[in-house]
Amino acid sequence: MPRGSNGQSAGAGALLAILRDGRARTRGELAELSGLSRSTVAQRLDGLIDHRWVVAGEGAVSSGGRPAAVYTFNEAGRVVLAADLGATRARLAVLDLGLNVLAERAGELPVDQGPEPTLGWLVTAFEDLLAGIGRDLTHVCGAGVGLPGPVEHGSGRPVNPPIMPGWDGFAVPGWLGERLGAPVLVDNDVNIMALGEHWAAGPAADHLIFIKIGTGIGCGIISGGRLHRGAQGAAGDVGHIRVAASEAPCRCGNTGCLEAVAGGASMAAALRGAGVEAGGSRDVVALMRAGDLRATRLVRQAGREVGAVMASIVNFFNPSVIVIGGAVAEAGEQVLAGVRETIYSRSLPLATQHLGIRASELGDRAGIVGAAVMVVEHVLAPATIDQFVTH
Amino acid sequence: MPRGSNGQSAGAGALLAILRDGRARTRGELAELSGLSRSTVAQRLDGLIDHRWVVAGEGAVSSGGRPAAVYTFNEAGRVVLAADLGATRARLAVLDLGLNVLAERAGELPVDQGPEPTLGWLVTAFEDLLAGIGRDLTHVCGAGVGLPGPVEHGSGRPVNPPIMPGWDGFAVPGWLGERLGAPVLVDNDVNIMALGEHWAAGPAADHLIFIKIGTGIGCGIISGGRLHRGAQGAAGDVGHIRVAASEAPCRCGNTGCLEAVAGGASMAAALRGAGVEAGGSRDVVALMRAGDLRATRLVRQAGREVGAVMASIVNFFNPSVIVIGGAVAEAGEQVLAGVRETIYSRSLPLATQHLGIRASELGDRAGIVGAAVMVVEHVLAPATIDQFVTH
Repeated sequence: MPRGSNGQSAGAGALLAILRDGRARTRGELAELSGLSRSTVAQRLDGLIDHRWVVAGEGAVSSGGRPAAVYTFNEAGRVVLAADLGATRARLAVLDLGLNVLAERAGELPVDQGPEPTLGWLVTAFEDLLAGIGRDLTHVCGAGVGLPGPVEHGSGRPVNPPIMPGWDGFAVPGWLGERLGAPVLVDNDVNIMALGEHWAAGPAADHLIFIKIGTGIGCGIISGGRLHRGAQGAAGDVGHIRVAASEAPCRCGNTGCLEAVAGGASMAAALRGAGVEAGGSRDVVALMRAGDLRATRLVRQAGREVGAVMASIVNFFNPSVIVIGGAVAEAGEQVLAGVRETIYSRSLPLATQHLGIRASELGDRAGIVGAAVMVVEHVLAPATIDQFVTH
Repeated sequence: MPRGSNGQSAGAGALLAILRDGRARTRGELAELSGLSRSTVAQRLDGLIDHRWVVAGEGAVSSGGRPAAVYTFNEAGRVVLAADLGATRARLAVLDLGLNVLAERAGELPVDQGPEPTLGWLVTAFEDLLAGIGRDLTHVCGAGVGLPGPVEHGSGRPVNPPIMPGWDGFAVPGWLGERLGAPVLVDNDVNIMALGEHWAAGPAADHLIFIKIGTGIGCGIISGGRLHRGAQGAAGDVGHIRVAASEAPCRCGNTGCLEAVAGGASMAAALRGAGVEAGGSRDVVALMRAGDLRATRLVRQAGREVGAVMASIVNFFNPSVIVIGGAVAEAGEQVLAGVRETIYSRSLPLATQHLGIRASELGDRAGIVGAAVMVVEHVLAPATIDQFVTH
């Protein structure tokens, strides 16, 4: 029987790619659309049904009087696990292949206790979530994990993560994959949020920048519908871009970094310096909401500083939309106004004419949706499906 | 017979994609590798041979004693036309499908006389070049054109090009395609140079930024091996990024743009202000080479200004390589030193550790090679081949 160039069954993935639009199709239609022979189509469909990617049903009555069998993508046949791990909190979810959230949990989870305790807790929590909806690990086709630090995406290993002691180089996909019995994909939290926001925004926003303004500042970049990770996976590190006319010291060792003037930690420190109690970015936003003028002024200025950096990036990248998330972004229009004002006054008209600048659509869920998108795109890629379905 | 979802013959493009590596293969091997039925493979190969994309030959003697027919990609079967039009000069070439230059010409060609005289001259020049190598327009599978201004790539129409009066909205692909009898693709000159440099650098440089420092300053961006054009095709407009601590007036109407302090036109104007005769960027470089200290100082400072803007972009984009081209780049190390010095001191170590910063490999040929790459990638894409080969 014909096999693909990598020794797998070619064609199964191509059939699934056709069926992913949700329409039911007959064998004959699938043979026409794919150019595969009828016998290959029949074999591949058997494999796809065995592996629960496709369901067979009865179609409309054909001219001969007998209904032809039709085949449909089985959105509910498998589930995806998604985890968005922050510095101190985690959000987990189980989603179907249509990215509907079937079960969800959020709670305290310190990542600074090292990878094994954290990931061990994750496995148990996933099993609980699955049990709650009558599923188990055999239904899982993959898991996606976002981590609060740099990750080498190809291997899924954290690279010198500053706030995750013990995680440097840890093989997250291997450790977790063994216990979950499914492929595991890992990326940094800002990248998966960008994937989630891109999915929510739809294909019209094919050049999207997601900026997270929290304790620090970072961004995730979508170029032509795909995540742009850069040569070392370090793309999006805008928090350490030098801001004009500032000598503020930054935790990175330089001075005048964007994060040192507009990050939540630096704003909280400035408030403490003025005698106001503020532990972190969420406190700054709470103070602003309570009417504190110093906090309000800081948040607005932070928006302008972020806008000044993004103005250059808009000229360079020409995004269709800039989405702002993270704790400071919860200040809403107070921060967005500053970002918009500076970008619109400093970028070129051609690049700003149709540019959308708005707050996150998914909020706290951006990470888990993005982690699930990352898994679904990997698992349902034709080459991966060809490997799964070795009939 | 099976047809693709767009009503064309599915499979021909997939077979050509397999054969593009240059290896000869039998029908049986192609059926195995593609998953297509044997009869489809036979039909599609006939079509590919009729259209000169593939040649048939005799392979090794098989066990049965008779040599099996083998099929190979026909690199010399078709040619590509490439044109790189500048403000006052043009470079044209005829290349084969392996991107080898078969014939080439460069000369004066003012684009400010409007599209029809310029493009009419181009058609005649292409016919001359083809005749010189014993070919004619029937051998041409496509043409690529770079223009010195913004282009809407999808339609190939210039968009308000500042130095090309009469070209705004002109349907270059339609006009030229009718006369050449082949598909025509158009993009701006910096984008096609980036494509050319990416092809020359190879797939390891999959995140590449090409900066052209000439009269003005612009860049072409490769993300994940593909040209990043941005939402309005305006990506790469770094010449109008605001530079810290400068109020120099720019031709765009703003002040403090990178181009107003580091562009060739601004440097020539500064020299003229100091009583030195300098018409443009090439004169500035010539003066520097002749030992003029003012010109040398300006060129070095221009490198540092470009470096300061690129330092932020390196943090954002994490490129594997930055390639510098254009007339000012011909100042070589005098300009590169300033760029390197500023990027290495201001960008993050993770992003600069393996970052290459170097002068153009292809020099004046970057544009024609890139224009040919653009055409070959379009013409040999499986979907395009399926449309060509409607047997």
